[in-house]
This record gives sequence, structure tokens and C-alpha cells, in this order.
Amino acid sequence: MDVFEGVAAEVPEGLADHLRTARLIDHHVHGASAVAVDRAGFEASINEASTDPIPAFMTQFDSPLGLSIRRWCAPVLGLPAHAGADEYFARRSELGPAELSSRLLAHAGVERWIVDTGFGGGLVTTPEQLAELSGRPASQILRLERMAEELLESGLESWSAADDFLHRFRGALDAAARSPHIVGTKTIAAYRTGFDIDWSRPSDDEVAARARAAMERPLRLQDPVLIAFGVHEAAERGLPVQVHVGFGDRDLDLHRTDPLLLLPLLRAMAPVPVLLLHCYPFHRQAGYLAQAFDHVHFDVGLAVNHLGTRSIGLIAEALETAPFAKQLYSSDAFGPPELHLLGSVLWRRAMGLVLGGWVRAGDCTEADAIRIVDMIGAQNATRVYRL
Amino acid sequence: MDVFEGVAAEVPEGLADHLRTARLIDHHVHGASAVAVDRAGFEASINEASTDPIPAFMTQFDSPLGLSIRRWCAPVLGLPAHAGADEYFARRSELGPAELSSRLLAHAGVERWIVDTGFGGGLVTTPEQLAELSGRPASQILRLERMAEELLESGLESWSAADDFLHRFRGALDAAARSPHIVGTKTIAAYRTGFDIDWSRPSDDEVAARARAAMERPLRLQDPVLIAFGVHEAAERGLPVQVHVGFGDRDLDLHRTDPLLLLPLLRAMAPVPVLLLHCYPFHRQAGYLAQAFDHVHFDVGLAVNHLGTRSIGLIAEALETAPFAKQLYSSDAFGPPELHLLGSVLWRRAMGLVLGGWVRAGDCTEADAIRIVDMIGAQNATRVYRL
Amino acid sequence: MDVFEGVAAEVPEGLADHLRTARLIDHHVHGASAVAVDRAGFEASINEASTDPIPAFMTQFDSPLGLSIRRWCAPVLGLPAHAGADEYFARRSELGPAELSSRLLAHAGVERWIVDTGFGGGLVTTPEQLAELSGRPASQILRLERMAEELLESGLESWSAADDFLHRFRGALDAAARSPHIVGTKTIAAYRTGFDIDWSRPSDDEVAARARAAMERPLRLQDPVLIAFGVHEAAERGLPVQVHVGFGDRDLDLHRTDPLLLLPLLRAMAPVPVLLLHCYPFHRQAGYLAQAFDHVHFDVGLAVNHLGTRSIGLIAEALETAPFAKQLYSSDAFGPPELHLLGSVLWRRAMGLVLGGWVRAGDCTEADAIRIVDMIGAQNATRVYRL
Repeated sequence: MDVFEGVAAEVPEGLADHLRTARLIDHHVHGASAVAVDRAGFEASINEASTDPIPAFMTQFDSPLGLSIRRWCAPVLGLPAHAGADEYFARRSELGPAELSSRLLAHAGVERWIVDTGFGGGLVTTPEQLAELSGRPASQILRLERMAEELLESGLESWSAADDFLHRFRGALDAAARSPHIVGTKTIAAYRTGFDIDWSRPSDDEVAARARAAMERPLRLQDPVLIAFGVHEAAERGLPVQVHVGFGDRDLDLHRTDPLLLLPLLRAMAPVPVLLLHCYPFHRQAGYLAQAFDHVHFDVGLAVNHLGTRSIGLIAEALETAPFAKQLYSSDAFGPPELHLLGSVLWRRAMGLVLGGWVRAGDCTEADAIRIVDMIGAQNATRVYRL
Repeated sequence: MDVFEGVAAEVPEGLADHLRTARLIDHHVHGASAVAVDRAGFEASINEASTDPIPAFMTQFDSPLGLSIRRWCAPVLGLPAHAGADEYFARRSELGPAELSSRLLAHAGVERWIVDTGFGGGLVTTPEQLAELSGRPASQILRLERMAEELLESGLESWSAADDFLHRFRGALDAAARSPHIVGTKTIAAYRTGFDIDWSRPSDDEVAARARAAMERPLRLQDPVLIAFGVHEAAERGLPVQVHVGFGDRDLDLHRTDPLLLLPLLRAMAPVPVLLLHCYPFHRQAGYLAQAFDHVHFDVGLAVNHLGTRSIGLIAEALETAPFAKQLYSSDAFGPPELHLLGSVLWRRAMGLVLGGWVRAGDCTEADAIRIVDMIGAQNATRVYRL
Repeated sequence: MDVFEGVAAEVPEGLADHLRTARLIDHHVHGASAVAVDRAGFEASINEASTDPIPAFMTQFDSPLGLSIRRWCAPVLGLPAHAGADEYFARRSELGPAELSSRLLAHAGVERWIVDTGFGGGLVTTPEQLAELSGRPASQILRLERMAEELLESGLESWSAADDFLHRFRGALDAAARSPHIVGTKTIAAYRTGFDIDWSRPSDDEVAARARAAMERPLRLQDPVLIAFGVHEAAERGLPVQVHVGFGDRDLDLHRTDPLLLLPLLRAMAPVPVLLLHCYPFHRQAGYLAQAFDHVHFDVGLAVNHLGTRSIGLIAEALETAPFAKQLYSSDAFGPPELHLLGSVLWRRAMGLVLGGWVRAGDCTEADAIRIVDMIGAQNATRVYRL
């Protein structure tokens, strides 16, 4: 596969060669599908925002992501580029999940996966399975709300007092901070409360009271105090904090996930690396925050996949105000291994076209462009997560 | 007229030919000027956002829309492309409204007009007149607030009780749902309340009480309960609901027309087709909603005209997260028939350049691009409005 | 220096020549560094949003602005284009502040500077010094909050009553309105209150009461009543009002500086020219306001510098809905004279590429493009500030 097929004349050769082979760190990713999915399941898995089945009057292949799957993944499965949707789905179904994953993952050129294991257990591969299928190591991200939920659920049976919650939560974070596998944490406050909450550090008493209340119905943690508590506790242990921002399914109120609403948190928290994830359509706001705060970083993962060829414009906009040391690569792939591959393909292609345009116009040197690729593709992640 | 003049090398030939001749459904449009306008009136009519006359220190021709009028409409009136503003205005004045409209409308390549008749009565053509001038049929959109206002005004004389409002409003909607001419409804909540209102379905008692209050001063309906009532009633009858979103005159608070503020409505309403109109500068948010909800669709009409050649960037951004089955074409032209033509010309040109770029880079096939044109240009409207 | 080096083929020759030599009015700028700065100081001065030193793990040269400094300023200092960061910093240090400024300012092609003197006294040149270093005249902008602070501080010793504040503030504005040097005023409400305040005109009694309260702790004026008072008083004297909007350091809450939040002010104030400054990432919203209100104008200064080569996309987006008579040029340079030069270089280059693209596609004539350059580059400022 040549990620610059069709546009090779627009990307200086040295930069193109570098981008073809650079090893990336995918700093926010999930497992690949561990089980076979039917056509309806596959269609739903390539729509991020809806929580319903794709309606009968359309196919989700008719989207920028669908076009990119047919363009880039079909050849990896032995079909011609742009194979039709039916043909493509038939072919991927023939292969079975493991074979499909190994074929697609092999082309991603990812050096290391940093896996969020907080969602989809059973349906997608574990970090160990992902590592095995791809031949590359996998680190882990601890999802704070999920950990709190597990503690609260277990507490229903065995705890003598909600005060134990603080103790156990802190103990679990201490263990995470010591673990060689866990390199950071993540909050999905976007889904649970939105960002327009009181982000100040709560007192232990308040946390205990809220934990007690949450134990009554612990399945879905939505208490802003407990969410803020988790983030502050993680930060105080020096653990990087990933934050889901913007684009996601419609359970969230998108306008309440504008990263600017995080200003009170960013100003008050211990200055561990904060990683704003996805960020679309607020990526310009995220870039601003990455210039404004030493500890703030961001990516445009997930959106790169869903915008397909329009990821070129997105990546150009992401390269506006943030220093190059503050941006990272991720796919945010979840489920279809097409997404693990496409994140990488589309990012490489877009970086080549955007930075290649800069080089061709004399706005920077080819060596500068290659250095920017290396920083965003891997070096920043290595520094942030101390890999 | 060749909409690809000057850029033909950038648009693959088959796609260009298709776009030159494809018949569009203009799914949201108003009448063309029925009376002659003087220079000041014309200048004001090509500024969307202001409600004042254009100031003496400038001409509205000095705008992206003004450049596009001189570029594309002058030749249709027998002038050279880029004729000066004075020359252009003199020429259009010579022709008179009917001749001007037939000349310009003839080049729009519109198969069917779907006309919002809720504003500008007398100054602009009726749907019947528009159909006659263009030789193409016109369907109609019922403006909900306008219908409510008419009922409330008539009620001042003849109603025994405000309860009649519910009965009559429902009766009028029932009739609309049966009418072969009316294919949908529209709300201008953007202008009356903004979107940050309580969108839950009100009880009949509350509606009656609000109707009683509104009858005291019925000229301009701004009661959020009555507005929400209208939308829910229309939806429950299966009538598509158009929603003015974003770009419009300064009577609205633009930030309170961010379509994300409609989330409570979109989650709660009967899932009839919702058509988010215009959407600029919130078109990325609109595209997200179109991915998130089966029943949500959008367009970037009105803005395409006002951005002139920059509509290329807008249309590129509109093709980011929404499935291709969820986007429609409209001009939102009101008054000068230049706008009825330009909407079509600029959309065709931009679609050719954006999709043509995709094809040339190998990101999709030419057949894909042509299919996307057909979906957005006409097929989606045919499905949504059951034409 | 040729601002079209590397892209000459994309800019029609007549337009390029015009842009190479057009004299600009930099309608919002600050002084150039008056004292030598060390490496840490220089790095901090090319990061707008942070208020901390640049962290040790990075250099601010690794940013779009850093690339542009190395690209465009290095040759002016006798280095090759793209000289390394260390080499560049060593060379600029050799020259000393005055020599550095005269070299860089000489290439800016600025006809007149309009200088905001409200910040940085002592560290940067006065308007007189800037005029001398550049050989071009400098007008001044009066910062409203700063003037109020000075009055309140002096009042701590000598005033018999806070009522004097109104009298003195008005007297100072009357003097400003008569001054041949002062051509306008500026508010930094963005930094002090955000825009979501009550913008109605306060009564004299309320102002006096607030002034009395502010005298208790007058160092930083943050009272929304006093801020609104200042703006209304300036407007009533016919003085243009510049408003800091959007992009700036993290002391402001960026989302509370969306210019749409100024709607209540724009609707209520005396219609003197309002100049929305910077505006990124809300420049589309600013363009809309410039179409909606006769008295509203805007620029994308500051952001043009910080986006480096990506200013091309920004300037394209700024040319969407605003009439060309409503946009101005500024650098918002403060400190390093690199910024005074780059604002001009990047603006010329971007205008050439954006408008040149329009001309090449036949979307406007070269004469139109040149006229747009002249309006935005100087004529609109001449009209607005009655120069």
C-alpha cells in the first residue's frame, strides 16, 4: 500500500518516504472486533454518533469514512480499490475476525498501542490480544469512571462505610501509578456530566457522601463531584489524564464538551499531562489550550477516520496555534480493525499533503516537516507517557 | 453558461458533464421579486444580516456575493462577465421583474421548487407564479408560527374561547398533511425565541393558556410553549419540519441558534424528517447531528450564495461527518432571482471542485461522486418529502 | 524580500506586484521591544496564550510562528532562510533592539501605525520611538480601562467624592476626541469581565457608586458597569471603539469572548465604528456581525502571525460574509519587531494566494482583487479613523 497514491506529486519525496515508514504510537485506541459482526452491526460500528441501527433508506458506506474503507482497506483484503460495499462486506466476512485484524493491523505501522480498556469488554480484543495480532506491544489507560463504578458496585456487598471508597479508589490509583502496564488515565466526563461542572477539588467528606448516594444506583456514575475527585486524584499521582472532548455518540451534549469549558480544571489541577482527545469540531479551541497551558496536549483522532479524505483539512486546522510538541497521533479505533489501519493511513496522507504543501511553498524545510511528523507521530507520546 | 469555466481542468469530465445538467430540487426557497426595486432596495436585498439600508460609504456589490452576481448573472443578462456594479444594475432595471426572473430562472436547472410562503407576500412571486416563470412545478412549506399568528388574529373577533386555538391549529395541520401542495412545515424559532427553550411537549391546557395570552398582542408569536407545540403537532402528523438554523438577519441572536441547542427537541420529538436549514457557521455541528440522528438532515443554503466563491470551502466542510443521504440542496433565494440562479451555479461548481478533487486524488470513483451529487441534489429531497 | 517566493506561479503578476508594494495601515499595533531580551524572554514573547515560561521539553520555535520567523526574518538579518533557532536567536541578539527594529520595520511597508499604548510601558517603544525607528507616523489608541484605572488611582489621594470620576473620565475623553494624536479607543472587557455582561448604559449614580467601590482596590478594573460606561461614553463622543475579541492569553475565558455575546452592546450603542480585533477562532462570527451592523468592522490580526503559513486558510475564511469595506489590516505586534514585519508579510502573501486563486478561477477580475487589497489594507482604516 502506498499512502500517497494519486497525490505523490504533491509530497516531497523525502517527506513521503519518511511518512511511509515512520512508526507511530497510537496513544488512544481500543481493541479490535473479537467476534464476527453482521452487516447491520458493521454499518452501525462505522457511525460514531448514532446509537440506533442505520436506517433502511441508506448505507453508512455512503459517508466519507465508507469511501475511505473501500479505497484503502479493500486492497488489503485482496479486492480492487473502491470495491463496492456489498463485495467489501462479503470479503471481510469470509476472513473472520482474527485473520481480518492481523491483515489490517500489519499495515498500520504502529510501534505501540495505548489501549483504553474501559468499554466494550468481550466484544473487542484485550490489549494482550491486540499486541499478539499486531506483533507490537500494548500499554493501557485506566478509565476513571469505570474504576469508580466497579468499586461502588463491589461495595454494595462488602463495604462497612462509604469512606472506604476514598481509600480503595486511592489505593487503586496508587497501584496504577506503579503498574508497568498502565501509562495514564481517562475521564469520560463529557458523557456523564458535560464540562460545565464545578471542577474544584472536593473534600473527602463530600466525596464520601456522594459515594454513599451513588451506591444506591451505581451502574452509571454521573456525579460531578466524584468525577472531579477522580481527575484530581489521578493528577496528584502524576498520572497523565486523557479527556474525551467533542465528537462522540449522541449520549453527550456536544456543545457542553467544548474544551474551553475545562478552563477551571486546567487552571486548578496538578499540572500532569492532559490529553484532549478527538476535539472535533472544537479542534481550534483545543489547539489554543495547548498553546496556553504547558501541560495541555491534544489530538484529532476519531475525527480523522470519520472525515475520510476531509481529514486533510482537519489536520491543517489542527496545525494552527498549538506548538508541535503538544499534539499527538491517535486513531481512537474501536471494533472494526479497518479503523486501526485507516487512522494511520489517513494521518500519514494528510500530514504529507499539509506539510508537503508547506515545504513546496518554501514555508519550512523538508527536515522541519520530518521533525514535526516525528514529534506528533511518536516523540510527544514517548515523553508524555514516559514510555 | 458553463459553471466550470476557469476550473475545467480540476473537474473530471464525466462528473463535470453530470453537474452541468443534473436537475436539482431546491428544497427551501422563496419567491422571486414581483416588483421592480431601486438600487438601494437591491443592495439591501443582497445583504442578509443587516436590517438597515446599506451605508453610503460602501456598496454591497463589494462582497463575495456581489462578485458572484457580476461573474455569473451579468452574462445571462447580455453583459460581459464581471460587468461593473452600475452597469449591472442598469441592465437588470431595464428588463423588469418578470423578464429578469424568466431569464435567470431558466439557467438554474431546478426540477422542482419547494417554496416557503411565510414571508414577503406581495413583494415576491407566489409558488404558482414561480412555477410559471420557471416552467417547473412548485410545492409548498407551511410556516408554523405564521399559521398560528393568523389563527390568533382571526380569533380576536370570532372565538368563544382560546381552546379553539388547539382545535383549529390541529385542523389546519390535518389539512396540510392531506394537501397535495404542502410537503412540509417550517419553524422560525431561531427568530422568535432562540433554541435554548424548553422543547418538551406542552399540555393542551398550557397551550390554551398561552394562546389566550398571545391573543392580547398576536402580531408576533414569541411564546416558546406555542412554538414547541407547533413543532410537536407537525411531527406527530408525519410532516417534515424545516428549522431555520444560524445565518440570518440580526433579529436573531446567532449564538442562540447553534443547532446543538436543539438536542432536547431532536431526542424527544416524533422522528419525522428534520431539515436544518443554512446552518452557517454551525454547519459542522449540523453535520454531526445528521450523523447522530436518523431523522436529521441539513443543508448549507443561503450561505452558499453569500459566501460566493468561498462556498467551495463551505461545501467541503459540509461533507465531513454527515452521511451523504442526510444532506440536501437549497438556495434559500428570496427576492432577486439572481439568488435563485446563483445557489445552483455555486453549488454545482463547488461540488465539482470538491468531489472532483476527491476523484483526482483517487479518494473515490467518479461514479461515487456522481451518485453523491444525485443524492444531495435531488434524491434525498424526493425521499424526505415523498415527492 | 519577495513575499511570493515559492508561490509566484499562483498569484497573477499585477496583483502580486501591487501586494509587494502596497502601503498598509497597521490599525492595531503595540511598540517594539525597547530592551534586549534573553532566549527565555524571546520564546515567551512568541507564545501569545501562555503566561508561564516555555517548558524545558520544547522550544516555541517549533510552532507555525516559529517557522515563519526563521523563514522570513532570518534573511532580513543576513542569515539564510530557515536558519536554525539557535543561530537565529544569536544573530538577533548581536544586533541590539534598535538596530533589530529598524531592519525589520523597514520591510513591513506600513504607511502608518495606530498604536495601543495601554500595556507594556517601558518594555516597548513609545509611538514616537516607533515612528522614528520606522520612518512612518504613529497615531494612538486610548485604552479605556487603563484610563479609568489611572483616574481611580489618582483619586485615592485627591478626590473629595467619587462623583468626580464621571467628570474627569468625560473630560479625558473630550480631550481625546480633540487630540490630533488619538484616533480611537479600545476596551479589553474580554480580559476583565468577558462579554456576557449587562451592556446597557448605566446611570451616573450607578457609575459613581461603582467608582467609589473600585477606589478601594483600583489596580485592576473589573467592574462591568464601569466597563460598559467607558464604551458608551467613548461612542457618544464619536470615537471609534476597538474591542479585543477571542485569541489572547489565558487570563481570559476564550468562550466568553465570542463576539456574538456583544450583540446587546452592538444593538444599543451609538453607531460609531466598532473594530473587532483578532477574533480567532470566532472570525466567522465576526464576519457575520460586520455584515449585520453598519458600524461593525473586524480584523484577524495577531492570529495571522501565530498561524504562520496557515494564515492563508484564516484569511480565506475571513473573506466569507463581511463586505470588503468592513475588514482591516493589523499585526497586533507587541515586543519582538519580527511580529511587526511578519503581520505584513503573511497578510500580503495570504491575500495574494486567496485573491489570486479567485482571479485565476475567473471568480473576480484582477482589478477587483487589487481594489479589495486597497480597501482592507488601508482605505477602510483611513475612513474609520478619519485619517
